[in-house]
Amino acid sequence: MKKTSFTLVFLLISYFSFAQFAGMMRGQQAEALPEGFKPSSTNTFLALYPAVNAQTRQAVFKVVAPTANTVQVDLCNKKYDMTKDDKGVWTCMSDPQVVGFHYYAILIDGVAVMDRNTKAFFGSNWMSSGIEIPEGPEGDYYRFDKNIPHGQVRSIYYWSELNGMERHINVYVPAEYEQQSDKSYPVLYLVHGWGEDENGWANQGHMANIMDGLIASGKAVPMIVVMPSGDIQTNPELRQAQGDISQIYVQDLLPYIDQQFRTKTDKQNRAMAGLSRGGFQTCMTVSANLDKFGWMGTFSGFFVRGDNSLETAFNGLFKDPSEFKRQIRLLYISTGTEENTPKAQVVALKAKGIDNIVYSESQGTAHEWLSWRRALNEFAQLVFK
Amino acid sequence: MKKTSFTLVFLLISYFSFAQFAGMMRGQQAEALPEGFKPSSTNTFLALYPAVNAQTRQAVFKVVAPTANTVQVDLCNKKYDMTKDDKGVWTCMSDPQVVGFHYYAILIDGVAVMDRNTKAFFGSNWMSSGIEIPEGPEGDYYRFDKNIPHGQVRSIYYWSELNGMERHINVYVPAEYEQQSDKSYPVLYLVHGWGEDENGWANQGHMANIMDGLIASGKAVPMIVVMPSGDIQTNPELRQAQGDISQIYVQDLLPYIDQQFRTKTDKQNRAMAGLSRGGFQTCMTVSANLDKFGWMGTFSGFFVRGDNSLETAFNGLFKDPSEFKRQIRLLYISTGTEENTPKAQVVALKAKGIDNIVYSESQGTAHEWLSWRRALNEFAQLVFK
Repeated sequence: MKKTSFTLVFLLISYFSFAQFAGMMRGQQAEALPEGFKPSSTNTFLALYPAVNAQTRQAVFKVVAPTANTVQVDLCNKKYDMTKDDKGVWTCMSDPQVVGFHYYAILIDGVAVMDRNTKAFFGSNWMSSGIEIPEGPEGDYYRFDKNIPHGQVRSIYYWSELNGMERHINVYVPAEYEQQSDKSYPVLYLVHGWGEDENGWANQGHMANIMDGLIASGKAVPMIVVMPSGDIQTNPELRQAQGDISQIYVQDLLPYIDQQFRTKTDKQNRAMAGLSRGGFQTCMTVSANLDKFGWMGTFSGFFVRGDNSLETAFNGLFKDPSEFKRQIRLLYISTGTEENTPKAQVVALKAKGIDNIVYSESQGTAHEWLSWRRALNEFAQLVFK
Repeated sequence: MKKTSFTLVFLLISYFSFAQFAGMMRGQQAEALPEGFKPSSTNTFLALYPAVNAQTRQAVFKVVAPTANTVQVDLCNKKYDMTKDDKGVWTCMSDPQVVGFHYYAILIDGVAVMDRNTKAFFGSNWMSSGIEIPEGPEGDYYRFDKNIPHGQVRSIYYWSELNGMERHINVYVPAEYEQQSDKSYPVLYLVHGWGEDENGWANQGHMANIMDGLIASGKAVPMIVVMPSGDIQTNPELRQAQGDISQIYVQDLLPYIDQQFRTKTDKQNRAMAGLSRGGFQTCMTVSANLDKFGWMGTFSGFFVRGDNSLETAFNGLFKDPSEFKRQIRLLYISTGTEENTPKAQVVALKAKGIDNIVYSESQGTAHEWLSWRRALNEFAQLVFK
């Protein structure tokens, strides 16, 4: 095998990239970006584009592709044609977007790929580009606050006997967890949506910043948050046999967490919530394990078709309102106003006498992460109280 | 904004993808893959390709791109032309590869992009595709072992005053850390290479599996491993002023770690090591802070040009051999046999009387992650003893 003169290459690359980088950050950034635009917070550290405008809520994209015939951006169900300059750099500006996080793709001659400029976010079963349309002061709750203590997101692989494979989870512990070595904590199981994975809440959802802020301000009680993989990384034979992955959560994951962490193990100190498909999984899991969970939340994920099926849905969870209220302290249901809402079902449940429901609509957002950050921010203030 | 009939779409997608997935896993996988090939361990859970052959060390790639004119794979400095079938699926088979992890790119009509089939790995300053050529039993040391206890990799954001921004680190704690609440641990600071980030050692390097195995077998002492961002995510003004990021490590990170974790804080219990540029940063940081570090390792990263400069390199670290040996318990230097080696410098150092060096060559590997997994596996057995 040919030996490469690596040292020289290394030094050249180092100095070149450093000089380029330093120059870029010392003023060229302001020149290069159109008035009012800043790099999206989802970009890799070096990338100026995509750039976003907080006032107009538009995004500008750039793709270096001198040899391509057509380049497009596919963002929120619209394809934007890009135009090429004489250096082979393609550009376009989007329509105004809903604030918050959106997945998107670049189409190189019609082939959907990731934009090299952004970090990778797992959605729709692939590593996708993401963009964040800023939304002003409201967003502070999910941004890093240097003035408060911060919890940790712990990446753990554990063996699932039921699944016959190791499974990856992320577990948030509050800032005080290390210092309070005699204290036990309530646990929220928090699940992502279809085509996403166990990293979604930490990466796209900024859940650690949200929880850090709520706990530091006393709005939420300190809690452990467990984020498992609720979707594709599950042995399909098992899923086909059981219809959902409740058994993995309850038989394998839950005892593992109670063994590895200082948890309160009664049902009043255990909650489950999820977004979209994870909301469906929450309803399936909690209704089949009412001895284990006392609180539940479903964010853009309360899927019951028609009022009639409320009797039979989720193992008959809603059949007997007084029994439901005895078993479940709170059912939180949220939705974005720009997606199909479960309002009719909520009205029907309340008419049946199930009134321990908090129903929340996220104004101006669709089936997307800003709806779910807002939902977590609300739900976490309600549980374990 | 148009409301989407999300519920229906969700259910259709769910059932379709589930059926497809279950079918694929129940036998179609064996049919679809050529004899002797298995999905690369770096693939997303659903993806059959790229597929790798442990015997021939070849890889087969597939890209769905009906509208592209040419598609290539760019792997280890060679571009492979792919051929298209009548469904627009492009295929090629690589030459035999060096075992271990390699970054690669897909070229769609000449534009380098990520392969949608793999997880994303940050390298060369972008989220890159990766492939893992299996290597038989040797690789067991970096694979998940269900029969031993597992440590945690903790994802933490901390505020760096010096840098004027929050910085992300990963911190490995051994499996026993939670149970031994009175015990303090030695600390290894472990840095990635150029264009990579603080996630490299955990993702590409499988460092947690390596450390779990060494600690469980008693070959390494239980230790904390801190993995900071040593490259691009650093305020460039600061880097330009200081030439390297030693100050961020020593002034901001080190006290933070000693405050947040149960660490042993004397220099005999603090080591630093890094790969490639991280090895260079290790030499710069340790030599400027001999009161703080007692052990050092540089994996494919011992960059000293010519014997003469050994006198002046790294703040005069090697000028006085007896002083070096008084300050540094061990200098570990490793390299792959298929890259430029620092053997001449090691010989020169030993000739000067600096004999507390362990020099190691990784057989058959180049400037790539298998060299560095092997190096960590060796170095971790040598430190803190």
